[in-house]
Order: sequence, then structure tokens, then C-alpha cells
Amino acid sequence: MSDAASPLLTDLYQLTMLQAYYAEGMEDTAVFEFFARELPPGRRFLVAAGLDQALDYLEDLKFSEEDLAWLQAHGGFTARFLDTLRDFRFTGDVHAMPEGTVFFPHEPILRVTAPMPEAQLAESRLINLLHFETLVASKAARCVLAAPGKLLVDFGLRRAHGAEAGLLAARAASLAGFSGTATVLAGVRFGIPVFGTMAHSYIEAHASEMAAFAAFARCHPGNVVLLIDTYDTEAAVAKVVELAPQLAREGITVKSVRLDSGDLARHAKAVRGILDAGGFPQIGTFASGNLDETQMARLLGEGAPIDGFGVGTHLTTSGDMPFLDCAYKLQEYAGLARRKRSEGKATWPGRKVVYRRYGDDGKMAGDTVTVESDPQPGAPLLQPVMQGGRRLIPRDNLAAARARCAEQLALLPEPLRELQTFHGPQHRPSPYPVTIAQALRDLAAAVDRQPH
Amino acid sequence: MSDAASPLLTDLYQLTMLQAYYAEGMEDTAVFEFFARELPPGRRFLVAAGLDQALDYLEDLKFSEEDLAWLQAHGGFTARFLDTLRDFRFTGDVHAMPEGTVFFPHEPILRVTAPMPEAQLAESRLINLLHFETLVASKAARCVLAAPGKLLVDFGLRRAHGAEAGLLAARAASLAGFSGTATVLAGVRFGIPVFGTMAHSYIEAHASEMAAFAAFARCHPGNVVLLIDTYDTEAAVAKVVELAPQLAREGITVKSVRLDSGDLARHAKAVRGILDAGGFPQIGTFASGNLDETQMARLLGEGAPIDGFGVGTHLTTSGDMPFLDCAYKLQEYAGLARRKRSEGKATWPGRKVVYRRYGDDGKMAGDTVTVESDPQPGAPLLQPVMQGGRRLIPRDNLAAARARCAEQLALLPEPLRELQTFHGPQHRPSPYPVTIAQALRDLAAAVDRQPH
Repeated sequence: MSDAASPLLTDLYQLTMLQAYYAEGMEDTAVFEFFARELPPGRRFLVAAGLDQALDYLEDLKFSEEDLAWLQAHGGFTARFLDTLRDFRFTGDVHAMPEGTVFFPHEPILRVTAPMPEAQLAESRLINLLHFETLVASKAARCVLAAPGKLLVDFGLRRAHGAEAGLLAARAASLAGFSGTATVLAGVRFGIPVFGTMAHSYIEAHASEMAAFAAFARCHPGNVVLLIDTYDTEAAVAKVVELAPQLAREGITVKSVRLDSGDLARHAKAVRGILDAGGFPQIGTFASGNLDETQMARLLGEGAPIDGFGVGTHLTTSGDMPFLDCAYKLQEYAGLARRKRSEGKATWPGRKVVYRRYGDDGKMAGDTVTVESDPQPGAPLLQPVMQGGRRLIPRDNLAAARARCAEQLALLPEPLRELQTFHGPQHRPSPYPVTIAQALRDLAAAVDRQPH
Repeated sequence: MSDAASPLLTDLYQLTMLQAYYAEGMEDTAVFEFFARELPPGRRFLVAAGLDQALDYLEDLKFSEEDLAWLQAHGGFTARFLDTLRDFRFTGDVHAMPEGTVFFPHEPILRVTAPMPEAQLAESRLINLLHFETLVASKAARCVLAAPGKLLVDFGLRRAHGAEAGLLAARAASLAGFSGTATVLAGVRFGIPVFGTMAHSYIEAHASEMAAFAAFARCHPGNVVLLIDTYDTEAAVAKVVELAPQLAREGITVKSVRLDSGDLARHAKAVRGILDAGGFPQIGTFASGNLDETQMARLLGEGAPIDGFGVGTHLTTSGDMPFLDCAYKLQEYAGLARRKRSEGKATWPGRKVVYRRYGDDGKMAGDTVTVESDPQPGAPLLQPVMQGGRRLIPRDNLAAARARCAEQLALLPEPLRELQTFHGPQHRPSPYPVTIAQALRDLAAAVDRQPH
């Protein structure tokens, strides 16, 4: 079994708690919800992602004999508990916001309803998946807003945090509107378009830049994107102008040139000028090199003639904010609402639903978070996605999620589309109104009156 | 084959370049080196990590028929090239700094010497592995310096960027001196001690906090660490003092209590006082909750009586600096030194070695980076680790790396041990002298005189 699907990809305390739950007969229904506690600096909204992988995980969750043998050797677990794990399966229900949905703090994007041990064990990996894909989808959505209509390609595998981060970041970026990725295996796994041509090493290994350009073009006549910053960007594009007519006579079209260093706005203008003056207005310009949404917006704001961007490190690590303050918390057990009251970390109890209202202009106007029994105006955002441990929605639904995210971004009110990060007080509220309904406030107060 | 070992876990351009290299007969020996370009804000040194996984990757690198079928369907690749890939293996040599070695910008920690296509294809995954483990080991080393002698446990799986990030972060933290991890599978894969007891949900699911404490202790008599911040920290520790004598009569010892929210220094002092006054000076205190090296140093500086820390998000995401400016660059091809001259990204050419000198006090005194043919005073830091595609050093050598890192941290000169991040000019040099030898400067100048 792969590491990604292992039931031991969890925190030890899940297993120690499980042994206690089984020993105490605490197998009643538990309700856990995953949500963000607050909007981090630098984000005006979040984009839900990772549900497809989360449901895969729940469907496949089981212990092998090898897993059980390891736990036995580790010690601290009873033979009876390990026997129970042998038959462990996730049999619960899941409600969730579909992937690609825009959401805000205090709004659950996933609710698990299952016997306590099942809902508990899944915590670590569910957070691991939902947190990371949501983090990157939310960052990628900002890139999409910053560079509307441009070709955006994920270049981030090398600086992503391991193999799965590279793959899931490519998926989350595609979900949020990126055109594709450089990561081949992300194309294999998720059907994402894959882009790529050459690195500096290819140029450097040749006797001259011109020789490298010519050799590459003849070897990949359908994919001629030439990297022009290895030595001198403007000198290199002059070589492209010199070479392109010869290639054209051979039936080979230079598609674009890639800039990867220096002052990209200045170089892009110079390069565009040289290409146009040389009679090649159809050769595009593609830029990369330490880019994020702010840099892209600045470049386009300065009128840099750039047709596409490769975004790497800052995308796949969510460089300005590499984590979200999110949690998967017990909201109800055995029919009673529950609430953590730890200082600064109190949560809203009970099974919650989220309603979204739209304005006369069709744009998102405000959300209400409330309890299940308290219908509110607007469209409910959570839907049943798994019942009795079986999916209710298709697997591999990246295309649908991508379409939904594009729709959602189009419905964002104007203040949420701005890139500028918030300044001033740390907890300054979002310009988007999220109302905690009175019914939910009443429930929290009732829970707080319970003895503990 | 797992995603982590797939040859398609690479950037598409590696494969397009490979097709061109083979078509052009460019299979001469290439030398690539992995190094950091500069020390990021917030780091005074880096710790080399990830070599074990990098060598695994190189040893196992091969294409399956399924991989080749996908590439054929993708298009852009010739039948001849795909046939070549069928027999592709990594047959080169690798020199590296052993894992756990402290290093600085411009110092290669890994050098690959192999036929060009082999050295090229490996780039993306080698960076992906070395970058991430080095990133986390370097962050973890700061935590170890901040909390000397304390029990440090990695709590970061849930916020790590995917499955492999969680596992490799646990490994990198252990390498740098952490006592263990909460991630069970990291124990399975790497033999790292695994820690864990209970979450808030366990407390909340019980009728009372006291009932939860008692039930857990009786279920896990050898591992009684009680989480005391679910409702009110001081009230909870009073319950521990009330419960502990009863448990003692049953032969059960309360090992420690865990604080997870609020003002940890204030709570730790209050909790310590209540435990001591109650006759339980031997019950330890363990703190967690949004901690990093700065927070731990502050807490200990304020005299907070805390015996151990759980460090999560900030460790596994390297929260203040989630990426390093590092690269894997062509340094030599077919016997000629090479150099990228892109603006702001120029690199030192040729096969390089690093020598380290030590002062009279035994502490590290300075490094020299030079070419292979220019011996310098001090101990050479790179060693042969792979020859002809086969390892020269043992697999699964985490214990040795951990011992080496502890030795290295003990040899750090005092200014490098300080936690404070640099302020002022962005490129302010490290207080540790790294000299670029004249022989290397001469080589760079000679390379720059070559036509391109």
C-alpha cells in the first residue's frame, strides 16, 4: 500500500484514542467539521479543494496485517484493539462544499458523520489533504485574478514539499484556473495539460546558444519555445529573429520565447520590439522566475507585453502564507452538541450549514452559518457526497471543479477580487459578510452551560 | 510503482531535452551541483538533508511500459527516444556532504557526474527531495538550539504539504535533533520514536473532563499524558492532582500534562505550582500550540517551567521561510566548465570542493570553495557516495546523520547559534566566512571569455 493511503499516515494519538473509545464502548455517532478559523493576511477568500482525495482516502481506509504487526511491536495496544482494527472500515456519511467553491472562516467545507472511532482516525489525513489543496487553490486563484486571460503554468515541482505536494499543487492550481503544469506525473494522474521545453543547462551544454536553439527546434518542431536569458536576453532574441526564417523554410514555427531573469518588464518590452521589428509579431513571450500574483499584476500593470507566465515556488509552497489556520473539530457526539472552549480557539458547536445570498447584480452578497434545523435565505453550500462509506459523487472530477471555480470567481464581489493584502489590525474582518445566525449562537450558549 | 519513485515525477522539459540530447549524440559526461544561492532571512546556516532519499531515487530510476505508453500518447516523442528510455538507468557517480552537515551558500552539497541525459533527468526530483529535507532540517536545528535538553516532538503532519512532506519532515526533524514525531508512519518508515496521547475531541466526547482523564489513564497506563486546556487549564490540572493519587493506588503513574492554548508561560507556571503543591513534582509539563523556535526561546527565557514541546505547522512548513533559493546547475560538460550568466543568477562553474577550517577552540572557523585541483587547508566536506549508479554508503542511515548533526551543531561558532534573524540590507553576509578561492574565480573568468 502506498504511504498516501496508509492508515498509519496519522498521528499516534488517533490510535491511542481509538483504543480507549472501543474499550469504553464509545462508538456512538460523532460529527466532525473541517473549517478555517480565520482568513490569513494576504487572502480575501479561500477556495475549497482536496475533496476528491479525501473521499478516496475514506473509501480505502483499512489496516493490513503488516500495519497491525507494526502496532503490536510498537507496544501500548491490546490484542483486542488490534483485532478490532483488522475489520475497521469507514462507514460514515460526508457532506461537503463541492471543490472549487469559494468559502470563508467559520464555514465548514466538510462534515463527517460516523461512529466516533471512524470519524476520529481520519482527522490527520483529512486535514493534511484539505488544508494543502485549499491553500494552493486559494493562492492560485489570486494568480488567475492577477493575470486574466494569460497562459498560466505551474512550474513548482522542484520547490514543492515532496512528491505529493508537487502533484496536488498542480491539481489545485488547475482547479483554480491554471492552464497546465510542467509536472509530467500530474498529467498522468489528473489529466492536466503538461508544458515544457528546455532549461539553461541545455543551452550551456551546446557550443553556442544559436546551435542550441536550432537543434532543439529541429528535434521538437511542434513545441518551439526558446529560453533566451542564459547569457544576454536581447542578444538571444536577435538570434531567434535570425534563425526563425531558416526554420520557417523547413516548416518549423517558433511559438514563443521564455524570459527567466532580470527586469522582466524591461526585457519583455525590448524582446517584443525586437521580435516585431524582425517580422515576428506572432512569436509569443512567456515569463518565469520567482513570480507570484503580485509580481504578475505589477508586470501587466507596467504594460509588459507578456503572453504567459510560469509560476513555481510561490504557488506550490503558497510562499507568502504556507499554512492556513484550519481545524477538524468535534461538533456533536451521541446527539449532544460539543464545543472546545480553549482560549482563542473556541469553535461553533453542532452540525452546521452555510447559506449564500446573491445580490441583484448576481454577485455573492453574504453568507449565513447556522444549525441544520434553521433554514435561512440563500443557497445551501454543503451537499451529501458520501453515504455509508460510499461516494455519492464521481471520482476524478477535476474538470467539474475547475468549471465551478471559474463560475465562483466570476461571482466574487469587487472588493474580494483585489490583490492587496489587508493592513492594520490582525483580525480585521473580511469585506465579505459572514453572519453567525442567532440559532447557532443560542446553541453555543447552551453548550457552555453544560457541566464538564 | 509509487508516485515518489516514478520517472515521470519530473518536469516535462527534462524529457524534451533528453530527446534532443540523444538525437544530437550529446551523451558526454555532465557535472551538475546542488547548492543554495543565498542564506534566507531568518537562517544563519543550513543543514544538509535528503541524501538518503536522493540516492534511493537514482538507484531505482527506470521507466515502465506504462510510463512509455503515456509518453507516446502524449505526443512529441519519437519511437526511437522511447526505446532509449526503455533501457534508461542512472549509471553515474555522486559526491555529497553527509546528511547532517552544516553548510552555507555557494557550497555544493551534492554533485552528480553522469552522462548528460542521466544527470539532466534527475534534476527535478533531486531538488524536490534535497530542498525540502534541508529546509526542514535547517528549521528544526533552530528549534533544537532554542530549547536545549527539552523533549521536542514533531506534531506537523496535518499542516504538512501532503503525505510525503509529513514523513520527510519527521525524518528531517529527527535528523536535526528532535526526540520524535507524532506521525506513526514516520516511525514505520524511519524508526523514529512516535509520541501521542489524546486530542480535545476525546475530552469533549466524555460526560466530564475528569471521566475522560480517568478512562484514558486506565486504558493506557504506560502513557498517561493528559491534555488540560479543553475548558480551563488550571481547573483541569486541579482535577489531575485529585485523580493522580487514586491512579497511583492502581499502579498508574501520570507522566505529564499538555498545555495547548492561551498564554503558555503563565499557564505553565500556574500548572507547575498546582502540581508541586499537590505533591506531584515528578509530573512533567508539555506545551504545544502554534510554536516555533522563537516562541520556545521566549517561553524558556521567561522561565516557563516546560519540559517538552510539540512543534507542528511552523516546523513542517518551515513557516517563516517555506522555500530556499537553491538550484541544481550544470557546471561542466564534455570536460569544459560551464556557467549560467543570467542576471542575478550567475553561478560558480566547474567541479567544486569545500574545505572547512576549525579554530583553536575546535569551533568552525571558515570554509573555502574551490575547484577540485586546488587543495586548501581544512577538511574536505564532500565525499563519494555513489559510483556507477550504486551506493557507496548504507541506506536508512538516519541514526548516523542524527549523530553527525549533533556534532556539527556543537561546533557552530557562537554568532551562528543565535536565533535572531538578520535585519538591514537584504544580502547582508553571514557572520561565517565562506571564501571563494582565487582558482575558482579564475575559472569563472575563463568561462566568461568563451564565446556563446
